[in-house]
Amino acid sequence: MQIALVQDKIIPIDELELVYLDRGVFFGDGVYEVIRSYNGKIFALEEHLQRFAASLAAIDITGIDIDRIRAGILKAVKAADIADAKIYFHVTRGSAMRNHLSKDDLKPNFFLTVTELLDDTQAKTEGIAVSTHPDWRWKRCDIKSLNLLPNVLARRDAAQKGCEEAILVDESGLITEGAGSAFFAISGKKLQTAPLTANILPSITRKYVIKAGENIGLEIVEKSLTPQQAALSDELFIAVTTRDVIAVVKFDGESIGNGKPGKYTKLLAEEFLSFTK
Amino acid sequence: MQIALVQDKIIPIDELELVYLDRGVFFGDGVYEVIRSYNGKIFALEEHLQRFAASLAAIDITGIDIDRIRAGILKAVKAADIADAKIYFHVTRGSAMRNHLSKDDLKPNFFLTVTELLDDTQAKTEGIAVSTHPDWRWKRCDIKSLNLLPNVLARRDAAQKGCEEAILVDESGLITEGAGSAFFAISGKKLQTAPLTANILPSITRKYVIKAGENIGLEIVEKSLTPQQAALSDELFIAVTTRDVIAVVKFDGESIGNGKPGKYTKLLAEEFLSFTK
Repeated sequence: MQIALVQDKIIPIDELELVYLDRGVFFGDGVYEVIRSYNGKIFALEEHLQRFAASLAAIDITGIDIDRIRAGILKAVKAADIADAKIYFHVTRGSAMRNHLSKDDLKPNFFLTVTELLDDTQAKTEGIAVSTHPDWRWKRCDIKSLNLLPNVLARRDAAQKGCEEAILVDESGLITEGAGSAFFAISGKKLQTAPLTANILPSITRKYVIKAGENIGLEIVEKSLTPQQAALSDELFIAVTTRDVIAVVKFDGESIGNGKPGKYTKLLAEEFLSFTK
Repeated sequence: MQIALVQDKIIPIDELELVYLDRGVFFGDGVYEVIRSYNGKIFALEEHLQRFAASLAAIDITGIDIDRIRAGILKAVKAADIADAKIYFHVTRGSAMRNHLSKDDLKPNFFLTVTELLDDTQAKTEGIAVSTHPDWRWKRCDIKSLNLLPNVLARRDAAQKGCEEAILVDESGLITEGAGSAFFAISGKKLQTAPLTANILPSITRKYVIKAGENIGLEIVEKSLTPQQAALSDELFIAVTTRDVIAVVKFDGESIGNGKPGKYTKLLAEEFLSFTK
């Protein structure tokens, strides 16, 4: 008889709930998004849905109606009724006995949470410390997939060093991005970040940060930095949906600028927030 | 109120079963093994447990007692009572609200299945066709982790080309291994396969194939091949726990040897099977 063992309980395979056979857990065979609301208003929903559709297409998960995803998000956000909400969702290719290849008629699994975003005041006013870690991720980081173990390991390494984010450095010695954020440097009036390639997530926050940079008169330079160049910059910051713009005041132990969030970073954060209203 | 949406059903977060919050699905934050039995006898159990312990240590999942894992496997195999069984199991870091960093006191999740291994006679007697695909995997393939989306995508590409396995080729143009197997070439009396590095899974089947090769008088060469070199080899085969040794008779559309399983491959397969008795 074919069986499963869940923790220490034997269950006949036929009686196993489908969630235990999710290809999300067997293979990370799925894609996800994180969206947030500001004071009840969802920010950049359509851009996130568009990127989600692109991620689904890239891994060839078909039969997902983006209009239904949007309706599900709106229904859940309404039911949750949280002013500053974090909306996480993923779709996996479905549930089946483990096999790299799946049948074409598999029904995808949809999962979403709406939770309260915690206040990030301290990081916002004082900035954060970051440390570098080798970029161990796969070669298609342009796809927002559930294969996030390298990001978890990098973040754990950062935490052990007392840092809030890991900045990933590829084999050629260039910074790609943060383990869970886009990474920016400012020197003079230049705002610099890595160009979008297959190694970089096309971050929606990144896009709005660049727009904010243009609005406040910065010159945008899409070119990768080395850790040495980053450490010598006037200002550094990370950008991520759930935290928007957070100044980096320490990079691999080196103080950045005067060790406090820089003036352009503060201006950028304000300009960014104006988009969310 | 914090909520989840599972397919189209709203569930308060507090009422959500923990399996939905498995870090296995959020991040692929776990490691796995596949073992098999031959006629009721589990093959290479201790080596698989040893590799599993190494994988757990590599991603810093602590508090797992390998003796309890072994006891669970033996209990499940006994309950299943299948002569030729495939035993799959994984451990994830645990279940919690999604956050890259997890609390130290998280309880790992254990999941195992015992299923019947299907007869593979056709592939064994006729050999299989394989096709190449870029190796998109992360940089720590020596860890047997649940981040397997690149393997799934490569296998899907192979299937579309009518092939049973994808042979992965790294950025420098060298073959690493199959999407779910080790890869070997034979030319003259040389048995060649890629050396074990951070890009290669330390395959237990690979180890026994090398031992079988030595036993039948082949010279072992641990050196990576290009696809061109592979296509010109006398014989090719893949090796994997669930199928042991399978001849490759077509490589990217090119016939290998006379298009049938080669003589040394057949000798190797027999020698390998002698270890399992």
